[in-house]
Amino acid sequence: MNAQSWHVVSESFPASRKVYRPGRMHPELRVPMREIALHPSSGEPPLAVYDSSGPYTDPAVAIDIEAGLGRLRERWIAARADTEAYPGRRVQLIDNGLAAGGKAAAEFSVRRAPLRARAGKAVTQLAYARAGIVTPEMEYVAIRENLGRECAVAGAARDGNSWGAAIPEHVTPEFVRAEIAAGRAILPANVNHPESEPMIIGRNFLVKINANIGNSAVTSSTAEEVDKMVWAIRWGADTVMDLSTGRNIHTIREWILRNSPVPIGTVPIYQALEKVGGVAEDLSWEIFRDTLIEQAEQGVDYFTIHAGVRLAYVPLTVSRVTGIVSRGGSIMAKWCLAHHRESFLYERFAEICEICRAYDVSFSLGDGLRPGSIADANDAAQFAELETLGELTRIAWARDCQVMIEGPGHVPMHKIKENMDKQLAACGEAPFYTLGPLTTDIAPGYDHITSAIGAAMIGWFGTAMLCYVTPKEHLGLPDRNDVKTGVVTYKIAAHAADLAKGHPGARARDDALSRARFDFRWQDQFNLSLDPDTACAFHDETLPKEGHKVAHFCSMCGPKFCSMRISHEVRAEARAQGMREMAEKFRAGGSELYVPAAKEG
Amino acid sequence: MNAQSWHVVSESFPASRKVYRPGRMHPELRVPMREIALHPSSGEPPLAVYDSSGPYTDPAVAIDIEAGLGRLRERWIAARADTEAYPGRRVQLIDNGLAAGGKAAAEFSVRRAPLRARAGKAVTQLAYARAGIVTPEMEYVAIRENLGRECAVAGAARDGNSWGAAIPEHVTPEFVRAEIAAGRAILPANVNHPESEPMIIGRNFLVKINANIGNSAVTSSTAEEVDKMVWAIRWGADTVMDLSTGRNIHTIREWILRNSPVPIGTVPIYQALEKVGGVAEDLSWEIFRDTLIEQAEQGVDYFTIHAGVRLAYVPLTVSRVTGIVSRGGSIMAKWCLAHHRESFLYERFAEICEICRAYDVSFSLGDGLRPGSIADANDAAQFAELETLGELTRIAWARDCQVMIEGPGHVPMHKIKENMDKQLAACGEAPFYTLGPLTTDIAPGYDHITSAIGAAMIGWFGTAMLCYVTPKEHLGLPDRNDVKTGVVTYKIAAHAADLAKGHPGARARDDALSRARFDFRWQDQFNLSLDPDTACAFHDETLPKEGHKVAHFCSMCGPKFCSMRISHEVRAEARAQGMREMAEKFRAGGSELYVPAAKEG
Repeated sequence: MNAQSWHVVSESFPASRKVYRPGRMHPELRVPMREIALHPSSGEPPLAVYDSSGPYTDPAVAIDIEAGLGRLRERWIAARADTEAYPGRRVQLIDNGLAAGGKAAAEFSVRRAPLRARAGKAVTQLAYARAGIVTPEMEYVAIRENLGRECAVAGAARDGNSWGAAIPEHVTPEFVRAEIAAGRAILPANVNHPESEPMIIGRNFLVKINANIGNSAVTSSTAEEVDKMVWAIRWGADTVMDLSTGRNIHTIREWILRNSPVPIGTVPIYQALEKVGGVAEDLSWEIFRDTLIEQAEQGVDYFTIHAGVRLAYVPLTVSRVTGIVSRGGSIMAKWCLAHHRESFLYERFAEICEICRAYDVSFSLGDGLRPGSIADANDAAQFAELETLGELTRIAWARDCQVMIEGPGHVPMHKIKENMDKQLAACGEAPFYTLGPLTTDIAPGYDHITSAIGAAMIGWFGTAMLCYVTPKEHLGLPDRNDVKTGVVTYKIAAHAADLAKGHPGARARDDALSRARFDFRWQDQFNLSLDPDTACAFHDETLPKEGHKVAHFCSMCGPKFCSMRISHEVRAEARAQGMREMAEKFRAGGSELYVPAAKEG
Repeated sequence: MNAQSWHVVSESFPASRKVYRPGRMHPELRVPMREIALHPSSGEPPLAVYDSSGPYTDPAVAIDIEAGLGRLRERWIAARADTEAYPGRRVQLIDNGLAAGGKAAAEFSVRRAPLRARAGKAVTQLAYARAGIVTPEMEYVAIRENLGRECAVAGAARDGNSWGAAIPEHVTPEFVRAEIAAGRAILPANVNHPESEPMIIGRNFLVKINANIGNSAVTSSTAEEVDKMVWAIRWGADTVMDLSTGRNIHTIREWILRNSPVPIGTVPIYQALEKVGGVAEDLSWEIFRDTLIEQAEQGVDYFTIHAGVRLAYVPLTVSRVTGIVSRGGSIMAKWCLAHHRESFLYERFAEICEICRAYDVSFSLGDGLRPGSIADANDAAQFAELETLGELTRIAWARDCQVMIEGPGHVPMHKIKENMDKQLAACGEAPFYTLGPLTTDIAPGYDHITSAIGAAMIGWFGTAMLCYVTPKEHLGLPDRNDVKTGVVTYKIAAHAADLAKGHPGARARDDALSRARFDFRWQDQFNLSLDPDTACAFHDETLPKEGHKVAHFCSMCGPKFCSMRISHEVRAEARAQGMREMAEKFRAGGSELYVPAAKEG
């Protein structure tokens, strides 16, 4: 498909090297990390950081969008010998929202027969975990979560408040297995998405972030969406949701899946609605079921299913300031009212589980009644649905399906913790996955920030994955700049949460960067930052010369007023005066602060 | 001075009108607010919002930077008959860091004789408050804080957790007086800055924000700094600190003060250091004292004084990752060590109080030992200084001086509340004024966001004023774009805090904007937002036509998937089915959620 011109960014980060760690149980594993080299003057080893960017940042890998990524997990899946290839569902014009002869986007070049579980088999990571099996995927995420730390740091003081999470000093493959078995973590890994690099979502692991991409009926193309996906994972997105709603929805998803090293989530009701011409009342279980199978065969790793929007809850939204703001929620509410019937998603939930179990599609139980404004936060509709999500969690678990729970939305700070507490209680500690929440409604254009505040807090309280919000939220479809801003902002929120939870090793990057700052190693400071390009560009706006990269000041204070420079002089003087000793003495003397005060004039 | 070309933005906000409310005790008061008109279809009255922008957004006022603003408070000050004009200190070349014949910036055209307290008089708002006097300034802020609400909203449910703050339903002039008298709030109002519109900083009032401006030795000019000041207050800065450190420091400050309707703060040690050629060891009490008087005569409303950096604490910083990161703190530490003597700021603190008392300069007791990295948060050096700040607070209060306390800095989320709790205890509830705090060190270029998270939280916990951080923090001097981003980001943090504290009326703007959103009143949504220009521009990127401003969708989801549009249909359908009644029945019936689950397939 030569008419399509692919533009994806596939270069290393500055001073960075892709490294791969082997497994022990599964020695063939090659778990990617990024090592950031520091200036020799630092005397510090390279810093290993979590790397969601996939092969795109490995110069040794030739990227070919037309061919897709290598099929990392193919052999592991085959070795389990519990799946079978089959012809699969035939792709139809309606899958792309097209009439015959419509404007079809170019299709992905290869079409493989999909896999599904053999009769009677459950091929979910949860089923394996319960059976006591540590899959290669599980060992992979154990190594990945440790960021290269070989073993527990003996005796290192933990600094944090994890609000009851049980974060281990060192993540073992067995710990991963046990967390998945308990339902406290999920490892999204559709057997038809072998390109994905395993990752884990759970309260006792690093906080993850999701980036939404996808076209709408109004704008965007296949190439743009593939570029956005690669761009999003470059900056740190751990999963990507394809929320496309326009034409070519099937084809765009195929291109994304074949080129994505991170799990891909979708909201299948969007495509189902396209198939019935956008008329919610015309939705049916048959069309929805067909869509689930279509997407499961393509390799979608998790489905948002709004099965908690029950007929009886719809009236609870009537007095809200902003009604129902979830697309899926509003679609299902409309269907329920129009037919005056219980939601088919709710009634057929066990059947949905059977499909998910056959491909290992994880559930992301949608919060269709989440609040869309501060006024509607924590109301009866929201919490009624949450109880139902708990009920559905237990149904899914009974069928070996992996589950996470979606959460709000718009919530003022004082109501955030209640969301986490209620979710843990109602849903048996299944991982929570929240959209922000936004802590005020008054700043459209800055909702990445209004929501980063809430996201950092709820991440600290225990949310396992944070769905990003971009500056365009409420105003338009995000472009690639918005995607980057959203991802970096959410990496900040997730990392702030890891620090506050006391995640072992989380502070390593902060400390390395702070040491670089104090030593005026400007280049190290840029390289260690979440966005080296922006940090360097901002510095260079006022001090562009190369010599300024080793200057003992910046334009903020200038040389004379640089506190860090003066602080070095203070430290030298203190050393000369034997101050370390004096400090000990001060402390030993009971830290006598109340020396008689300034003379009273 | 015609060579100087002034550029300041002085236009109204869209759909906004400047209104002035009169006083009751002081009928001549004209307290400014901004009223945002809503579309007639809303059936809603205009929304009054707090307006820090001064006469610049009043089309009825002709702005003339060369002449300065009107002297609003001049008559109130004169009426108290406790000040006297005197010749004042002669401005010297050294005040501007200049040798004779150096590059002097143009001086402000008018020079007036400064005022000071008559012998034996205290002219501080604290002294008046203690004497039971409700000054015009106090009534002014009472009206301002109520945002046009005429009286307490009877029976309105309070929604928030104020962490022990005592926020009244309605702010009376007497409440303002009592809070100032108790030291829980300050009203910065130098008798030589009559241009300022009174505002209040305290835990029981709306959370305020400060913007730092100022040149450095490396960059910037007078006109740029005046423009930044006007720009900062346009977007919501409640006070501005002039942190200039380069040449022309006296002259730039004069231009800023004469044109500023908000209180101006400074760090006098910066100018004192310029006067001794940048050599900290050469500082002396005499030079510092002379600088205080110079700035008090100009009208500076609050001084950051780093009197808590005591000799004995310096050794406590030696093992820190980032040493001393406060400019003032590092300067004083260096002085103390060089002379091996107690800080002259500490020893002479009572004399400093006498100066502040004669002009009503408020103290902002500097946290010279604040942490500059996550690693150094809440350490012995930081908290030792905080105890001393408490001691100094009591000394200042004994002399009728107004005091607030500066706080950090870099603090991970789980250590933020301890800062607030310790500050309240150590400093007798004097208002807290924090810089962020930043919740991680790994995102230079995005530190407005890393710090907005901490700022919103500590604002919720009780911090009275939040000092902004711009995207350029740690990298360079902020330009006007950075100033705007920093201010809007901090308005978000402050407002999120007001909401969470349950400040009466805080939610009015959120609710108005959410209603506009749900009604597809796009223009109202833009107009009600903190930054109408950006909100509108983002929307117009994909849907630029005027017709789209009334469209019942945006490019994010497109028409078919607009949850709000569907939600309206749901609401109409629900009304048709008598759903409100059904909701009541559902609630009355004990909200039975556990209807037997989906059939177990």
